[in-house]
Amino acid sequence: MEKVIEVSYALDTFYFLVMGALVMWMAAGFAMLEAGLVRAKNTVEILTKNVALYAIACIMYLLIGYKLMYPDAAVNSVWPGIGFLIGEDHTLDEVLKSNGEVYYSVMADFFFQVVFVATAMSIVSGAVAERMKLGAFLLFAVVMTGFIYPLQGYWKWGGGFLDELGFLDFAGSGVVHLCGATAALAGVLLLGPRRGKYGPEGEIHPIPGCNLPLAALGTFILWLGWFGFNGGSELKVSNVEEANAVARVIVNTNMAAAGGAVAALLTDRLLFGKVDLTMMLNGALAGLVAITAEPLTPAPLLATIVGAVGGVIVVFSIMGFDKLRIDDPVGALSVHGVVGIWGLLAVCLSNPDAKLSAQLIGIVTIFAWVFAASFIFWYVLKLTVGIRLSPEDEYNGADYAECGMEAYPEFTGSGR
Amino acid sequence: MEKVIEVSYALDTFYFLVMGALVMWMAAGFAMLEAGLVRAKNTVEILTKNVALYAIACIMYLLIGYKLMYPDAAVNSVWPGIGFLIGEDHTLDEVLKSNGEVYYSVMADFFFQVVFVATAMSIVSGAVAERMKLGAFLLFAVVMTGFIYPLQGYWKWGGGFLDELGFLDFAGSGVVHLCGATAALAGVLLLGPRRGKYGPEGEIHPIPGCNLPLAALGTFILWLGWFGFNGGSELKVSNVEEANAVARVIVNTNMAAAGGAVAALLTDRLLFGKVDLTMMLNGALAGLVAITAEPLTPAPLLATIVGAVGGVIVVFSIMGFDKLRIDDPVGALSVHGVVGIWGLLAVCLSNPDAKLSAQLIGIVTIFAWVFAASFIFWYVLKLTVGIRLSPEDEYNGADYAECGMEAYPEFTGSGR
Amino acid sequence: MEKVIEVSYALDTFYFLVMGALVMWMAAGFAMLEAGLVRAKNTVEILTKNVALYAIACIMYLLIGYKLMYPDAAVNSVWPGIGFLIGEDHTLDEVLKSNGEVYYSVMADFFFQVVFVATAMSIVSGAVAERMKLGAFLLFAVVMTGFIYPLQGYWKWGGGFLDELGFLDFAGSGVVHLCGATAALAGVLLLGPRRGKYGPEGEIHPIPGCNLPLAALGTFILWLGWFGFNGGSELKVSNVEEANAVARVIVNTNMAAAGGAVAALLTDRLLFGKVDLTMMLNGALAGLVAITAEPLTPAPLLATIVGAVGGVIVVFSIMGFDKLRIDDPVGALSVHGVVGIWGLLAVCLSNPDAKLSAQLIGIVTIFAWVFAASFIFWYVLKLTVGIRLSPEDEYNGADYAECGMEAYPEFTGSGR
Repeated sequence: MEKVIEVSYALDTFYFLVMGALVMWMAAGFAMLEAGLVRAKNTVEILTKNVALYAIACIMYLLIGYKLMYPDAAVNSVWPGIGFLIGEDHTLDEVLKSNGEVYYSVMADFFFQVVFVATAMSIVSGAVAERMKLGAFLLFAVVMTGFIYPLQGYWKWGGGFLDELGFLDFAGSGVVHLCGATAALAGVLLLGPRRGKYGPEGEIHPIPGCNLPLAALGTFILWLGWFGFNGGSELKVSNVEEANAVARVIVNTNMAAAGGAVAALLTDRLLFGKVDLTMMLNGALAGLVAITAEPLTPAPLLATIVGAVGGVIVVFSIMGFDKLRIDDPVGALSVHGVVGIWGLLAVCLSNPDAKLSAQLIGIVTIFAWVFAASFIFWYVLKLTVGIRLSPEDEYNGADYAECGMEAYPEFTGSGR
Repeated sequence: MEKVIEVSYALDTFYFLVMGALVMWMAAGFAMLEAGLVRAKNTVEILTKNVALYAIACIMYLLIGYKLMYPDAAVNSVWPGIGFLIGEDHTLDEVLKSNGEVYYSVMADFFFQVVFVATAMSIVSGAVAERMKLGAFLLFAVVMTGFIYPLQGYWKWGGGFLDELGFLDFAGSGVVHLCGATAALAGVLLLGPRRGKYGPEGEIHPIPGCNLPLAALGTFILWLGWFGFNGGSELKVSNVEEANAVARVIVNTNMAAAGGAVAALLTDRLLFGKVDLTMMLNGALAGLVAITAEPLTPAPLLATIVGAVGGVIVVFSIMGFDKLRIDDPVGALSVHGVVGIWGLLAVCLSNPDAKLSAQLIGIVTIFAWVFAASFIFWYVLKLTVGIRLSPEDEYNGADYAECGMEAYPEFTGSGR
Repeated sequence: MEKVIEVSYALDTFYFLVMGALVMWMAAGFAMLEAGLVRAKNTVEILTKNVALYAIACIMYLLIGYKLMYPDAAVNSVWPGIGFLIGEDHTLDEVLKSNGEVYYSVMADFFFQVVFVATAMSIVSGAVAERMKLGAFLLFAVVMTGFIYPLQGYWKWGGGFLDELGFLDFAGSGVVHLCGATAALAGVLLLGPRRGKYGPEGEIHPIPGCNLPLAALGTFILWLGWFGFNGGSELKVSNVEEANAVARVIVNTNMAAAGGAVAALLTDRLLFGKVDLTMMLNGALAGLVAITAEPLTPAPLLATIVGAVGGVIVVFSIMGFDKLRIDDPVGALSVHGVVGIWGLLAVCLSNPDAKLSAQLIGIVTIFAWVFAASFIFWYVLKLTVGIRLSPEDEYNGADYAECGMEAYPEFTGSGR
């Protein structure tokens, strides 16, 4: 019997590690998506941001964030207290005596959680692309991954007050995606649009991405990684019920993405007569974000519909932000923010435990906290190191100004 | 003891999900391979096709295909009947009472199967590249993934008449690869070659792909994904015999790809004195297709040889299709069709249960059904919406005509 | 109880296969990294090398290398003897009677080991890029993967004299990375620098890579694949202690990469005022190489520091090789060689069983054997087929000379 408990512990730990590796892979997905959707002259900088933010997220979450989000002994349901992850793990004795309560490694849990932080921060980098200073972005990443994200994470997943209220968010439509998009929104509002994006008479000028295969690759990577993101959030696989649940979560995740892609494609075709690849990619991602708050309870067909609604919303949302002259080069505010809210509300469609009031309180709380904290910190950065590239640097490209190198020196005719 | 059965069920389910995720990743592989091998002006369109066909395959297979291929109660061994997947799964009770017969989640099975459908359809998209209308392709995808593929899939894997006959096809050299290539062939014959591919005096003009690193990346992705494709087709991993079998399948899959790559490289070097990267990539893929019908029974050295023969065949087959003026921009007819047939025949080299007659009947049946059904539907599309771009649209590129955007606006000098 | 042993065997085998698949994926990572860092005119050739070397490594290791490295009955602790892998596996009976000694499939072990060989060989291809003949490289790959690598692998992992001495190298900072870098160094010294890299007065001319998103993608792939490289090297996951160990190894691997990336970024910023993306990528890889010799015993914070030191070392090492006019287009000598040595020494920081003397003997032995054997074989190649492209071929690019095709025919203005 002890041997069975050990194998079961090993299976759950291994499952967690595999799912975590898939989520880590999403960092590459965001990097490729964003590198594909910006102009060549800002490509090195956005790659640098994506690698660096992942590294910073890991270090900050190790030093501060993890124990802030999952405290050993919380002070209260709003403020968890401060701690530090040393690296000890469960002993065999603990596992055997726990009666099934202790069923996977602490280190595996840390690994799974740390890649989520990086995901939230990746969302920010796309929205502020092509005009923000690299240094300001990286300083923001330190505060976001060490403090802003973990604190609201504690409120829900660490057992804080949102959890006590009955707010439901399975894998993070709110805790991860709305959080990331809200932090991005605060930055975007302080930063302003890219030069030339909006004309004086209200014209909206498209600024096409320079490498669409990379954007498609990034979307496929994210789609794959999301199987880990949602599938791992079941937290356990080692019995019949849990194994079925993980399988269902993964099926629903896949179906929602499919629904989102097809819905965005059809919406786009009906509105404009052509098929916009980037819109379809955002539709797939919107489907994924939409199902993230509740990928377990819907039947696969309902999951497809939840994703499809996300795919329709994202088309109109992207147009809406442009009307408001809020410039978001990759559509991150729409995909992760607006559709994240849809996902949190859609929990009520299939989960009998969901309460609309609790969902709304969760949405408002996450938005208010992340927006306020981010806005303040972006503002401090604006007053001190500055957040926006000079007009000349923006014209020449962030790569020249910040990195001193070109992404494609032989393709773009050197003159940048 | 019950706990062991549960852990075993969980392990098999988890294995299935991981293998399925690898197969899903093949969708990205096909997208990158094809995007690398077409010209820049047709890149957005082929990316759009690849993302959209995956999404369509998931939805059609959920709605119709899965229950067509794996009916709860088949009408007869040729016609399965119609059904719909609701999303229920095995209960603990069912599992415990089944005496090991019920050993993994239905949802995991659906996930694994649905990514196979997408693979079959991905094969089509490369062969018809650079000249087909996007809308016609997507309509064909609906019928292929909802009906044409699942019906022949039922004949073999659903327990239909090909299975009863003793036709052997472990992971789908026939059911997936030959099927996809045959549907493509029907389309290609109705579509005709790209303008400028064949000269009036029988000249063959090479049309080089625009981005070979993407083609190499796509091949590596497919190579990796194939470990799931073949490795998952063992369907079970949870005891010593099955675990050994899965390991052997994965080793043989890897060796066959290696054999195919080296054989194509040497063949090419001997024939032409240079090393053609795209030929070597096709050699690796040919090795993978060749071993797919029987990756379990050969020793690793024989698997290498089966793959190597596939790698030689593919070089001559690609030249042969060009001689016949059948234009296949990525070599999909050769890799998946001709080598798929080789793979089905090669089963007889190592599997004592194989009967050459049954293999031949299987090949003819799959080819005849898929070709006839596809040809009819392509023909209907030709008469109604049209399947071929206008000469002007083909000259300007599918991206401009169908998608209204460029894949690499800064690299190709705008003039397209 | 027998059923538990079977499930446990299946879990360990499956874990090994998943980890092996991640390591195989590193082949794609090296291919993308190197394709991104060379010039457009040498891209097809480097892709060809990367695909071909992987295929050759698989075949040579099957035929000779595996049994050389892991002999059934070694002749002595320096010379293992010759053998061949037929493909038989453990029987159920063997497993049950082994009292836990036989706990995973031989085929899975072969799969995991074979992808390591390919990694070692991949390291070579970057360092000799842009000037070596393709044929000479592939011939070297045959000898390296069939003989040079497996023999020193036997000395440590096969139970040879380095293992008996107490030399510690968990996943191969020495056996894989230092080995690969040393073979590369021998080739680079015989080959000389690329034309135009070093001026007559000691100037060092940067030769920028043509496609930095590919380089970033390659780094993300390697980062992901390394979870398999180190995580799989624990060799077992199926009980509480081993599951915890695997989790800790993966966490430490991730933290070391993060530490290396941030340290290289800061070092670069302090030295030059700008942020060099390629240096940060090399910093992340350096962190990974540094932790590979001992990813289990350090606490996560120490792992971060070990990686960070690697990230600092790599910056100075790359500058140092340039001072010595030793031309290494991708920094492989520094990342895998110099930092590999650091990793082997850093074992002493956390593992109480480590002896500095044994580590030094291991470093010297690996370096001496690999350098001597490689130098001799490179020299034989130089005298026979030649290893260096003619000046004209080097000027026109290896793609034109060796492959007869261009990687990006539409982007670089055809004139090459």
